[in-house]
Amino acid sequence: MYVNVAVLKETQPHERRVALVPSVVPKLVKLGAKLHMQAGAGNAIKLADAAFKDVTFMADRKELVADADVVLAVQPPALEVINQMKEGAILISFIYANREPALVQLLLDKKITCFAMERVPRITRAQAMDALSSQSALAGYYAVQLGATTLGRVLPKITTAAGAIGPAKVLVMGLGVAGLEALATAHRLGAVTEGYDVRPETQEQALSLGATFVETGIDARGKGGYARELTVDEKAKVAVVLTRHIQAADLVITTAAIPGRVAPKLISKEQVAGMKAGAVIVDLSADGGGNCEDTRPGETAHIGQVTILAPLNVPSLLGEDASELYSKNQYNLLALMMKDNVVKIDWDDEILAKTVLTHAGEMKSEAVTPHATSA
Amino acid sequence: MYVNVAVLKETQPHERRVALVPSVVPKLVKLGAKLHMQAGAGNAIKLADAAFKDVTFMADRKELVADADVVLAVQPPALEVINQMKEGAILISFIYANREPALVQLLLDKKITCFAMERVPRITRAQAMDALSSQSALAGYYAVQLGATTLGRVLPKITTAAGAIGPAKVLVMGLGVAGLEALATAHRLGAVTEGYDVRPETQEQALSLGATFVETGIDARGKGGYARELTVDEKAKVAVVLTRHIQAADLVITTAAIPGRVAPKLISKEQVAGMKAGAVIVDLSADGGGNCEDTRPGETAHIGQVTILAPLNVPSLLGEDASELYSKNQYNLLALMMKDNVVKIDWDDEILAKTVLTHAGEMKSEAVTPHATSA
Repeated sequence: MYVNVAVLKETQPHERRVALVPSVVPKLVKLGAKLHMQAGAGNAIKLADAAFKDVTFMADRKELVADADVVLAVQPPALEVINQMKEGAILISFIYANREPALVQLLLDKKITCFAMERVPRITRAQAMDALSSQSALAGYYAVQLGATTLGRVLPKITTAAGAIGPAKVLVMGLGVAGLEALATAHRLGAVTEGYDVRPETQEQALSLGATFVETGIDARGKGGYARELTVDEKAKVAVVLTRHIQAADLVITTAAIPGRVAPKLISKEQVAGMKAGAVIVDLSADGGGNCEDTRPGETAHIGQVTILAPLNVPSLLGEDASELYSKNQYNLLALMMKDNVVKIDWDDEILAKTVLTHAGEMKSEAVTPHATSA
Repeated sequence: MYVNVAVLKETQPHERRVALVPSVVPKLVKLGAKLHMQAGAGNAIKLADAAFKDVTFMADRKELVADADVVLAVQPPALEVINQMKEGAILISFIYANREPALVQLLLDKKITCFAMERVPRITRAQAMDALSSQSALAGYYAVQLGATTLGRVLPKITTAAGAIGPAKVLVMGLGVAGLEALATAHRLGAVTEGYDVRPETQEQALSLGATFVETGIDARGKGGYARELTVDEKAKVAVVLTRHIQAADLVITTAAIPGRVAPKLISKEQVAGMKAGAVIVDLSADGGGNCEDTRPGETAHIGQVTILAPLNVPSLLGEDASELYSKNQYNLLALMMKDNVVKIDWDDEILAKTVLTHAGEMKSEAVTPHATSA
């Protein structure tokens, strides 16, 4: 006896990640998985099928999926895939149910037990399964590199016989996992760094990464880790302070995202117009529409003398490492439900109970609320 | 009385730099310069004409050049510009005489006193005028950023609850100014760094930047700072060692350039074929044809699972800082020849004597030999 696990080749444009990497194969085998992958699943990150040992590759996706007890993917699969799955089988991937009503309906119709990776709760025990965090960390690192190749200036102080230049000023807005990693990376490169978040408890983390914290004098803490709505007066006060910092920055990185939802606007058109000539914004929330009013998701906008980069699906740009971490996150989740070569789901386990989206034809959460306020 | 100085708007494709920046204006004025610039000269680095005080902007290049005692530029100017200059006037810019026979002939015909920035001698006193060094430092920094945005992996070690990834291995070949800055930058980012150069005296510098030094057991020191030709046996020995290090690297940065000459080949097609899947080469010597047999200057080559970036004119990609340093280098050179509002060239000054290319209709150097073996 064993658990038949199938790994899809991703089909969304520009998606390079794959849900299983060679280093995780032996661990899944040990749990009792019999592994099948779609041919070429790792090609986008230059992993040939031959790089996987103990995995059966199948060219026909229909055949691959039809036999699977568990299907693993990164992005929400095509509806066709769900149709091809066995009734009652398990799907584990990002889903973003808000954006995928047809997919959710099909998961219900087919009685698929679907664990949505973006629903992993942010509790200590679940950190090893938290793909939003692992992918966001990579995105934060990448945003700095992207900004550095676009900016006409260097981040560190460089000293030459003719004089010194730099360091550049980097402002990171939104201090979740991505924002903190961006602060850490810019600091490593020698930039002068500033962090901003509506949650004052992030101040300490910013300081520990060598950054200063932008103090607006307003405490926006609300219920359950969410920011509360500010009053008109408070908003005006915050805007004045932020404008000053935005205008002093050479590179601004914004990271405020609610997965699957529209991203909040942190930078107005007026604030962009007042920025330094040559300044660059890297908007990590382009997938949700962007944190800046001038952002054009998936494109580079040249607004006056300011350049705004808004790359989509940034973790995929670091596909090798992103796949490595994602695969480990999925393994850790599977380890909660696989034992002695069978799947057995303990619905009293908080992680599984909160991560599941659909089961036995039922929606497992009325309000499909993702858990993060800041990527 | 004053010295009429004219600054050109660069015309070569993709050249963003400008030979004068606002911070250097007051210094030149103090030396006795009356400054004129071609309209829009700073536009490519987002410097509006209005950003320059005490500079007269002129839309007509012919008029600008005709009156100038000194013409400043970054790239070798068009022949037309030389034709429009006053006989006996001074031109200061990069020239690369080997590649510009028609330009050199015209400089002679017009009796232009031409100081070629690439000819500034590498002596201590001349460091503040050394634009090859200042521009190379920027290129070395940029190469790492470019590699980091192309690599599917992160350079630093990143620790997540699901496990740690990185650090990546970065090999820098050619430890001139660019190579050392690349080592410093990759080290700052948290990569494991290795340096290689045929000149063993670079070992200490590599070590001081946190890198290890690739030891080949062969001492290639020759006369006057140049590397000597190796024997066939020696070459084979070196190749074996280098192949091992090239194949272990995630990112290789090559910097071996002789300005104005064809770049030496450091990486063979066979060595590329043996590299890790997903590895990236950034070839900083693309302007000279590249250090790798698979390099396609100005393009990105995908050779098997390896990506080779070969950007042209890399300092121009950091145009703001590159212009700042270049302008300071030119100011320091001008300060040697301007005093009390007149130009007076002391031909006994080693720097001026070595930097001059043409004067009063004569070639000032038989062998037009640039000074560097490694950018």
